[in-house]
Amino acid sequence: MKKEVCSAAFLKAVFAEFLATLIFVFFGLGSALKWPSAMPSVLQISLAFGLAIGTMAQALGPVSGGHMNPAITLALLVGNQISLLRAVFYLVAQLVGAIAGAAILYGLAPYNARSNLAVNALNNNTTAGQAVVAEMILTFQLALCVFSSTDSRRTSPVGSPALSIGLSVTLGHLVGIYFTGCSMNPARSFGPAVIMSRFSSAHWVFWVGPIVGAATAAIIYFYLLFPHSLSLSDRVAILKGTYEPDEDWEESQEERKKTMELTAH
Amino acid sequence: MKKEVCSAAFLKAVFAEFLATLIFVFFGLGSALKWPSAMPSVLQISLAFGLAIGTMAQALGPVSGGHMNPAITLALLVGNQISLLRAVFYLVAQLVGAIAGAAILYGLAPYNARSNLAVNALNNNTTAGQAVVAEMILTFQLALCVFSSTDSRRTSPVGSPALSIGLSVTLGHLVGIYFTGCSMNPARSFGPAVIMSRFSSAHWVFWVGPIVGAATAAIIYFYLLFPHSLSLSDRVAILKGTYEPDEDWEESQEERKKTMELTAH
Amino acid sequence: MKKEVCSAAFLKAVFAEFLATLIFVFFGLGSALKWPSAMPSVLQISLAFGLAIGTMAQALGPVSGGHMNPAITLALLVGNQISLLRAVFYLVAQLVGAIAGAAILYGLAPYNARSNLAVNALNNNTTAGQAVVAEMILTFQLALCVFSSTDSRRTSPVGSPALSIGLSVTLGHLVGIYFTGCSMNPARSFGPAVIMSRFSSAHWVFWVGPIVGAATAAIIYFYLLFPHSLSLSDRVAILKGTYEPDEDWEESQEERKKTMELTAH
Amino acid sequence: MKKEVCSAAFLKAVFAEFLATLIFVFFGLGSALKWPSAMPSVLQISLAFGLAIGTMAQALGPVSGGHMNPAITLALLVGNQISLLRAVFYLVAQLVGAIAGAAILYGLAPYNARSNLAVNALNNNTTAGQAVVAEMILTFQLALCVFSSTDSRRTSPVGSPALSIGLSVTLGHLVGIYFTGCSMNPARSFGPAVIMSRFSSAHWVFWVGPIVGAATAAIIYFYLLFPHSLSLSDRVAILKGTYEPDEDWEESQEERKKTMELTAH
Repeated sequence: MKKEVCSAAFLKAVFAEFLATLIFVFFGLGSALKWPSAMPSVLQISLAFGLAIGTMAQALGPVSGGHMNPAITLALLVGNQISLLRAVFYLVAQLVGAIAGAAILYGLAPYNARSNLAVNALNNNTTAGQAVVAEMILTFQLALCVFSSTDSRRTSPVGSPALSIGLSVTLGHLVGIYFTGCSMNPARSFGPAVIMSRFSSAHWVFWVGPIVGAATAAIIYFYLLFPHSLSLSDRVAILKGTYEPDEDWEESQEERKKTMELTAH
Repeated sequence: MKKEVCSAAFLKAVFAEFLATLIFVFFGLGSALKWPSAMPSVLQISLAFGLAIGTMAQALGPVSGGHMNPAITLALLVGNQISLLRAVFYLVAQLVGAIAGAAILYGLAPYNARSNLAVNALNNNTTAGQAVVAEMILTFQLALCVFSSTDSRRTSPVGSPALSIGLSVTLGHLVGIYFTGCSMNPARSFGPAVIMSRFSSAHWVFWVGPIVGAATAAIIYFYLLFPHSLSLSDRVAILKGTYEPDEDWEESQEERKKTMELTAH
Repeated sequence: MKKEVCSAAFLKAVFAEFLATLIFVFFGLGSALKWPSAMPSVLQISLAFGLAIGTMAQALGPVSGGHMNPAITLALLVGNQISLLRAVFYLVAQLVGAIAGAAILYGLAPYNARSNLAVNALNNNTTAGQAVVAEMILTFQLALCVFSSTDSRRTSPVGSPALSIGLSVTLGHLVGIYFTGCSMNPARSFGPAVIMSRFSSAHWVFWVGPIVGAATAAIIYFYLLFPHSLSLSDRVAILKGTYEPDEDWEESQEERKKTMELTAH
Repeated sequence: MKKEVCSAAFLKAVFAEFLATLIFVFFGLGSALKWPSAMPSVLQISLAFGLAIGTMAQALGPVSGGHMNPAITLALLVGNQISLLRAVFYLVAQLVGAIAGAAILYGLAPYNARSNLAVNALNNNTTAGQAVVAEMILTFQLALCVFSSTDSRRTSPVGSPALSIGLSVTLGHLVGIYFTGCSMNPARSFGPAVIMSRFSSAHWVFWVGPIVGAATAAIIYFYLLFPHSLSLSDRVAILKGTYEPDEDWEESQEERKKTMELTAH
């Protein structure tokens, strides 16, 4: 289903994850700076985070899939969609990208607007327990939207996958900002925490919540709702990055057409 | 047109309706919590309800059609699009999902933001009569948008059905919030009413208005504007869930192409 | 290119224009009511007008083309795209629909929110001359977007025509509300003026501006940028509603494919 | 890949760039007028700039590609996508269009709302160095989105290119307005500066930042991520406007299908 490690395509994909996460974190955090002249509203910040994901998914999705999020990458690993090595390289690229994006913003933002660089935290008296459940649900809906919007087996009209995914991120922020500032993405939380050296005792929430939420979505989507009919050896091959699908593309297209009326509902 | 009851596909569809309605109600109500630090605006709440429907329609539409709304399900029954049994199972799944979504939000939201959990009510001196007409019109436009966006016979460019449907929900809220808090959906009204034990004397408005509005749209769409050319026995078979369309997909595709210029205007 | 007058399809199209304009005017004006509890913002009203057009274009565009606007209908007549009879019937349906939509809103809205039902007027010291030029430009960009988004000859990706057209209406309002309340559409201005009996001396602005703006766009689009290669007798036949295109659809499709690389830029 | 200079298609394309940039600048600046009755918010202005680009890209993209931006045109020249002559003509058309759009707005806007016609400047104590880096990053993400959304080689679902590009412009404004008023586009900065005769000592920032940012994106996109397999003589022919691709469209389509599974991830 995809070419693997040490190929030019793999290196480009890892670079794309680095670059896309850098841009995403720069614009997301950048939209939430506390400018004294006009404080950005919750809606404004929510749209900026969503459009940043949507724009980068549109621009670099064809290169790497446009994860920009360790929770999505790990969930796709759980869903047996990518190799272990790809997951590891993506994860490192995302974390480094997030730190770089936060660092560049730190350098550009004037001192009086920088504040805490929109680092995630427990807001409005939210407890760590409430926060981890909230982050799970926020990321669960995003992950489900990502899987469905980018599933090459989908036959019903998909519209713009990038925009749907971006608006799902916006949706999460419209509810999540009040609880935790809204992470949904460990890299987005990690980047500014490194740059500001602000690792609160609740930082684990922004890893556990998103990853558990996305992994749950992967189990529901890839094993319950839309299971792949692959042999165990194929599944192991995907994990190892050596999987080579049969090249009967034409045939599978015919099959897709045949099944359209079953799903077009 | 679709496989029926007691198949794995049917059970998955019922589960998808439960899950999608749960997520929709959680995010819709969650966006309308009364946070003392920053009260959400009408626009913000309207976008959240719309994006919640849009995201779940994108994610789970391929499984169940993504109704998430008893008014839409009943209207599709009126329009002879789904079986009676499917309608009943969907309706129960939607109501249980809405209660579950409201319950989870109740557990997560801090006491001072929870307020009445955005339960629907007659606002700004609206009478029950005005409210029921308003809810009819709000849901009428949504239902028409749903039917047209998901009609497999459509030949003109459909764009993103999920996004169009979601934005139609947003449109309803931009007008309806002032009148009733905007229901358009009996499950969305029922869920928080159960959790808060707040069934006002106007609760019937949020069942009658949306159902009559959506059913009217179904009659106009499926019988007047775009009637199906099915025999009576076929229609009964759809209602009973035993309908099997002729498998001449290729042929019907050809026919669609032929009629494209008539509708491509 | 389309079936004509006195057929069931024609009557359905006229009914669809009536219904779509009714809903559009109801939601557009309804979003601009002056609720004492929370006055709607310019952005909120702009989005509501745009989403109302977008939702109805998505829902009823396949029936009638989804004009909902005498300026668009007359411009398509100028562009030799529809028959004279269709234009006349659409125009009447739009005006009656707009009056009906405004009347229903008048009946539903509480007295203290009704205000002047968002009737168009010269705001912020705008002169009639400035207003007519502003309305021309506002409608010009909308008309250009409509023509390009619904042109069946288009080969580059069109995305969602309904959404693009709706957002073009939103764009117009973001600038136009300050000048004139933003018409872009004589029916939208006419409906509330009839119901409120408020025909100011500047009411002509909301007919002349939009119609001249849209007609200019039609001349540029249909005669300069993308002229049809039709004989004079074909052009007269379109105007009379008797035009029958050659039924070589397959052939024209092939031709379209051949020209794709010229326009795919 | 495209027909060249002195053809009717070329002249239409240059005219389309003029017209699209005029409309874009009129609506962008027009949304940012300082109306005493209701000052537009950052979100509102950001959406207007984005929807203006999105609407014009939808309407006139099929004619000229819908650049409306010297930085994008020059970046496509760097990426070896257009001829030198096309770049020069587009650039002049864009600058003249921007001046015309700003001039019309100047004539229409009442004196007390006109302010400085939204001319770009260093805001909130931003230094020229910070501003030029910010403009580079703002334009970098836009250019990447433009290249990917309009790449005819793309096989994964593209959704609505016009909307994706427009929302990328909105994204830039949500962050950039605070720093510089947000240029991302030398023509957008040049037009109002000419009309208001306000060329600050930082005006160069709005040329250097966008052009360097977009050119960097072009190098990454067209040489690193998705290089074309063209001979040097083909590349020179593109630059000179004499390039004629082999007319084996059918063949290349087949090839595209074959590679779909590699990129559909």
